[in-house]
Amino acid sequence: MGRVCVTGLENLVPDKRRMKLVAYLKTGPTASHAGGWRHPAAALHDIFDPRRYEQLARTLEEAKFDAGFFADTFGLPDVYGGTFRTYIQRGGQISYLDPMLVLPLMARVTTHLGLGATLSTTFHPPYLLARMLASLDILTQGRAAWNVVTSATDMEARNFGMDSLPAKGLRYDQADEVLEACNALWECWDDDALVLDRESGVFADPEKIRYADYEGKYVRTRGPLAMPRSPQTRPVFLQAGSSDRGRTFAARWAEMIFASGGGGIEENVAFTQDIKSRMAAFNRPPEHCAVCKSLGVVIGETEAIAQEKADALDALADADLVLAHNSTMLGADLAKHQTPDEVAAVQGGAGITGIEDTMKQRAAKEGISYAQAVRRPRKVMVGTAQSVADQMQAVFEAGGCDGFAVWPTVSPTMFEEFGRLVVPELQRRGLVQKEYGPGATLRDRLRA
Amino acid sequence: MGRVCVTGLENLVPDKRRMKLVAYLKTGPTASHAGGWRHPAAALHDIFDPRRYEQLARTLEEAKFDAGFFADTFGLPDVYGGTFRTYIQRGGQISYLDPMLVLPLMARVTTHLGLGATLSTTFHPPYLLARMLASLDILTQGRAAWNVVTSATDMEARNFGMDSLPAKGLRYDQADEVLEACNALWECWDDDALVLDRESGVFADPEKIRYADYEGKYVRTRGPLAMPRSPQTRPVFLQAGSSDRGRTFAARWAEMIFASGGGGIEENVAFTQDIKSRMAAFNRPPEHCAVCKSLGVVIGETEAIAQEKADALDALADADLVLAHNSTMLGADLAKHQTPDEVAAVQGGAGITGIEDTMKQRAAKEGISYAQAVRRPRKVMVGTAQSVADQMQAVFEAGGCDGFAVWPTVSPTMFEEFGRLVVPELQRRGLVQKEYGPGATLRDRLRA
Repeated sequence: MGRVCVTGLENLVPDKRRMKLVAYLKTGPTASHAGGWRHPAAALHDIFDPRRYEQLARTLEEAKFDAGFFADTFGLPDVYGGTFRTYIQRGGQISYLDPMLVLPLMARVTTHLGLGATLSTTFHPPYLLARMLASLDILTQGRAAWNVVTSATDMEARNFGMDSLPAKGLRYDQADEVLEACNALWECWDDDALVLDRESGVFADPEKIRYADYEGKYVRTRGPLAMPRSPQTRPVFLQAGSSDRGRTFAARWAEMIFASGGGGIEENVAFTQDIKSRMAAFNRPPEHCAVCKSLGVVIGETEAIAQEKADALDALADADLVLAHNSTMLGADLAKHQTPDEVAAVQGGAGITGIEDTMKQRAAKEGISYAQAVRRPRKVMVGTAQSVADQMQAVFEAGGCDGFAVWPTVSPTMFEEFGRLVVPELQRRGLVQKEYGPGATLRDRLRA
Repeated sequence: MGRVCVTGLENLVPDKRRMKLVAYLKTGPTASHAGGWRHPAAALHDIFDPRRYEQLARTLEEAKFDAGFFADTFGLPDVYGGTFRTYIQRGGQISYLDPMLVLPLMARVTTHLGLGATLSTTFHPPYLLARMLASLDILTQGRAAWNVVTSATDMEARNFGMDSLPAKGLRYDQADEVLEACNALWECWDDDALVLDRESGVFADPEKIRYADYEGKYVRTRGPLAMPRSPQTRPVFLQAGSSDRGRTFAARWAEMIFASGGGGIEENVAFTQDIKSRMAAFNRPPEHCAVCKSLGVVIGETEAIAQEKADALDALADADLVLAHNSTMLGADLAKHQTPDEVAAVQGGAGITGIEDTMKQRAAKEGISYAQAVRRPRKVMVGTAQSVADQMQAVFEAGGCDGFAVWPTVSPTMFEEFGRLVVPELQRRGLVQKEYGPGATLRDRLRA
């Protein structure tokens, strides 16, 4: 395993690697930082206006982001205190619009930016997923991405008629099948099956179209998909699994991984090496998956200004909302777990492994308890454009990541600021692209 | 029943009624007429180009159509000869792009046109439907419509992991529940639940948000929906059920009905009266549902030119494709049923009742056999702009319909022609609107 890993990393000559930038988005005013929506620079009036998302897409493309994708869940979290009261009253982060309907609008005003949706393999039948995503890939001319999730909350299960979620292992087993089924559907039409010859009356060549005939333990679908092969055949797969099973799943499928990692460079390097090693077991070259470290930034003209700005942002975060958010993420009601020992007992539970790891790493790094970590607003990177670039460069060049999944501390203005201040600094250092590469599709450009 | 019906129709004073126009669309080059895609005026090069659908939306809005909606099914029909060969080779009508991703683009370039999707209650969980459609209603600013179908082909069932469809009655029972569940989800948020006060940190008022807690025999969902109430609360419901169970379902829910009716005015009047009578049983005023008669037109400068054009269009229809299409609609393989007696035996089967009725009515009206009727391309209305308007006016004023569901004989050019030639004639007669009414939403405008 170690050998395989080293072999993999040898390919990643630092000079040749390009730092990837992907934007983590929500269809709403809040993303990741509990205080963000209350910031004076946060736009609230246009949450439901298509122009908000069109402008956001343009901003990301101007900053030469590889892609933007919408995080998503199905419901209003009610773990904290057994009610959604705090979460919705205090501005918890939810998807206020179905991202799938917003993405075509963003595609229409851009030409290179990758565009991704989060869709659950637990709640969507493969035929539905395959058709939606192939349509998105066609409408974006080969820029579609799919953040594959298995869902992590019983809230979602209850919205879909179940009492609770299937166990994590089973969800991932089903997800493997859903992706196999979707791939079978996406490959039903050969590239040149569409003929469109009105003279002879031949619309398509049936010899170049076949059934999918996928029969799994959990899902079945016959096909064929009733549409031609899309430019990328399949969307670029994004994934964020952090558990052992989740990492194996990511190593098999993911072309971009979001690592929430709250630890230092050492933890980031270990995570990245682990993923690349697991990829080798699936005969995948390490450069076929970009590990992107989660990143929120607060930028100031000086370090002191940046820190003041970060403190002001943290002061906007409602303490109860932070607990409500983390209750959802950890799958346990932190209103019931008050003492440090009780909070510590929440670990290893039903929640998202990556979030739990982040809390643990943050506690270790900052010398605080786990109980303190779950009470703090989301950690951000603070500094001048130069020092933020320094920090990003350090993790990247140490092999701690292949890029960053940037979430907006303040939405959507932070992306404009990041593009204006940090991206040019990264470009000057030759770390990120100054222009989009020559590839025809998102996948081509990510691998270039 | 007769009394109730008469009471209902008394409200429909002909002078006061406005003829509704809705466009029946497909995301592809073929719609309803098997020869349409081969016509020299049919556009084939831009099937996958967003601009095709944007231009179509503009054309419909210029013609003051009430709405356009996409028909849809999930799969490539393979009933005829047990293979999809003929259907796809000869240009059968399928949805080549997921309509849900196309509608936001059409909304972006229009302001009054209603925009509808066809979504099956058999294959979509209510939470998914409710969120998609509420999002569409928000992005269209209150112009969303939902053509509610229960699906009618085993092809679709197999794509969704079933061996065959549930029986029709059971599908409608489930559809009733899905609509109840969706309505419960759409009503979770009071109109004024969203607060967005960054000073106090109050995002929404939890007292004005509640669980849906819908528990049916077939579907369950807890809610609440994680988004504010949409402008219309629920999309305008479209429906096309023709069976006894389908008509009862439509009478309970539908705000617009598509009647494929191939018969004469008498049959149209009987159908319309039947629907209005059934509505009375649900305490719904008859004007709350517009019965729209299916209509394809071929227009010429003279009657003779129009007839020549219609004949030329019919000549483009592949004979096998017509049989393949009708095999799908009737749920029986017409390749196996060759003699008139064998074809006659196909009646009363597993297919779509409305299509079967259309065939029977056409046979009776044209003095041909049922076996001949299933071999003919889709019947169109032929004439000059004046005589087409005459025919539409006659059915409308006799109470045979409240409007028309216009499908494109040649897509999309026919809508431009219809808007340029027939609509002004209808406007001159005071039958259709010259400008959109003052209502804030599609529902308001339909009821005005």
